[in-house]
Amino acid sequence: MRTSNVDAIQTVSFIGAGNLATQLALTLFEKQNEIQQIYSRTLDSASLLASQVGAEATDNLEDISAKVDLLVISISDKAMPEVVSRLQGLNTLVVHTAGSVPMDILSSCSPRIGVFYPTQTFTKAVRVSFDNIPLCIEANRDIDYIRLKQLAQLISTHVTEVSSAQRKSIHLAAVFACNFSNHMLAIADDLLQKEDLPLDILKPLVVETIEKAFRISPKKGQSGPAIRHDQNVIAEHMVRLSDKPLFAEIYEKVTKSIQEI
Amino acid sequence: MRTSNVDAIQTVSFIGAGNLATQLALTLFEKQNEIQQIYSRTLDSASLLASQVGAEATDNLEDISAKVDLLVISISDKAMPEVVSRLQGLNTLVVHTAGSVPMDILSSCSPRIGVFYPTQTFTKAVRVSFDNIPLCIEANRDIDYIRLKQLAQLISTHVTEVSSAQRKSIHLAAVFACNFSNHMLAIADDLLQKEDLPLDILKPLVVETIEKAFRISPKKGQSGPAIRHDQNVIAEHMVRLSDKPLFAEIYEKVTKSIQEI
Repeated sequence: MRTSNVDAIQTVSFIGAGNLATQLALTLFEKQNEIQQIYSRTLDSASLLASQVGAEATDNLEDISAKVDLLVISISDKAMPEVVSRLQGLNTLVVHTAGSVPMDILSSCSPRIGVFYPTQTFTKAVRVSFDNIPLCIEANRDIDYIRLKQLAQLISTHVTEVSSAQRKSIHLAAVFACNFSNHMLAIADDLLQKEDLPLDILKPLVVETIEKAFRISPKKGQSGPAIRHDQNVIAEHMVRLSDKPLFAEIYEKVTKSIQEI
Repeated sequence: MRTSNVDAIQTVSFIGAGNLATQLALTLFEKQNEIQQIYSRTLDSASLLASQVGAEATDNLEDISAKVDLLVISISDKAMPEVVSRLQGLNTLVVHTAGSVPMDILSSCSPRIGVFYPTQTFTKAVRVSFDNIPLCIEANRDIDYIRLKQLAQLISTHVTEVSSAQRKSIHLAAVFACNFSNHMLAIADDLLQKEDLPLDILKPLVVETIEKAFRISPKKGQSGPAIRHDQNVIAEHMVRLSDKPLFAEIYEKVTKSIQEI
């Protein structure tokens, strides 16, 4: 049973002092949360962040106290198994911030586990606002889900409950939406470079395409020769790509997919 | 020989009263150009635009006078051959505004021809500034190229000389950069809908991806499992796509292309 009569999360510690940990710790600190400890493999990194949020810095995982309301593990996917194996039997809420790691990886750390995943990339240098960043949260206990949700809503207006299975779909979707659309720009850049033209010549069109996709949906916003079934233009483009067989195969498959979706 | 001691273009007429013609006529009018005539197949469309720029409206191509410095043909690619065949032997500079049509299509209209192609889509309803829209211009005579360039520079800071051959490459590149990247979002949307998740959950990531691509180049900005050669994640994604064979083929080809480009 979910109720809002729960104690709010007030004290938070961080495992990791990377880009996301830094942005999140600074933001929670400003929202009156008490940041207790920052762990990093290198004491300098831990100290740099700790000094900004009034926390204690450590490079020793054994120093980490479970006497906090929330322990946030924000490290690389690769480092997760080893760090998790060294954080056993804590009796507090432990979450990670990774998009592609199931919540269950934390099972040996604590009976109370969760995920706090912002769908955005971060850099330490540029301070970001979480206001418009979707926060995907998950917890194995209802009461902890409510606490995480309250904390998330302090900093973002886009808080969504997302299961580990759903997060896998988000990750796959992001490969298409981000990595692959970026590669479409890389192919365009390659084609333009051959004619000594800068990619910037397409910037207003690309920006408008993306804005329109989010405004009316990408399916409704689709334009170009594929959706118009303009065989003359498609055939001409295939001829122009004859010296780039992989680009030609991509052109053919994506054209077919646009016509079939 | 190109020199800047040329008479500037001052009087302009338009064949077409569509989105681009409307935006361009309004902008040139504001920049003190005299708009003389607006032709459209429907007199209402011609009159609507003509009344805003102090021009004469007509739905009869034979009314169009060659006594202007510039005649802009801004109609659909499909309508171009027929309209062009009815505009014979004009003795003034005639340009079209199409991305994918060679300049030479205008050869029978006038000995002085060119292209004035903004790489952006337009809607009538939303007034746009041309300031940051790249204008690709071409002319068969040097003196007319200079005139077109001067006119273009009145309204945009991004004026580039682009040959008909280069415009073909821009058009092909735009299919990848706009139509195909939009379809990558459509695939992402499809995958997310199956999990009852909105595409908006990826918006900040997509926007940052596109900004980064133009900031540091898409090749340098590439991230994700393909460029990391993360075979575990790639194999898992292929399994998840097994019920979508066309998406799986696209995943495979684009992954290969990211690794090879």
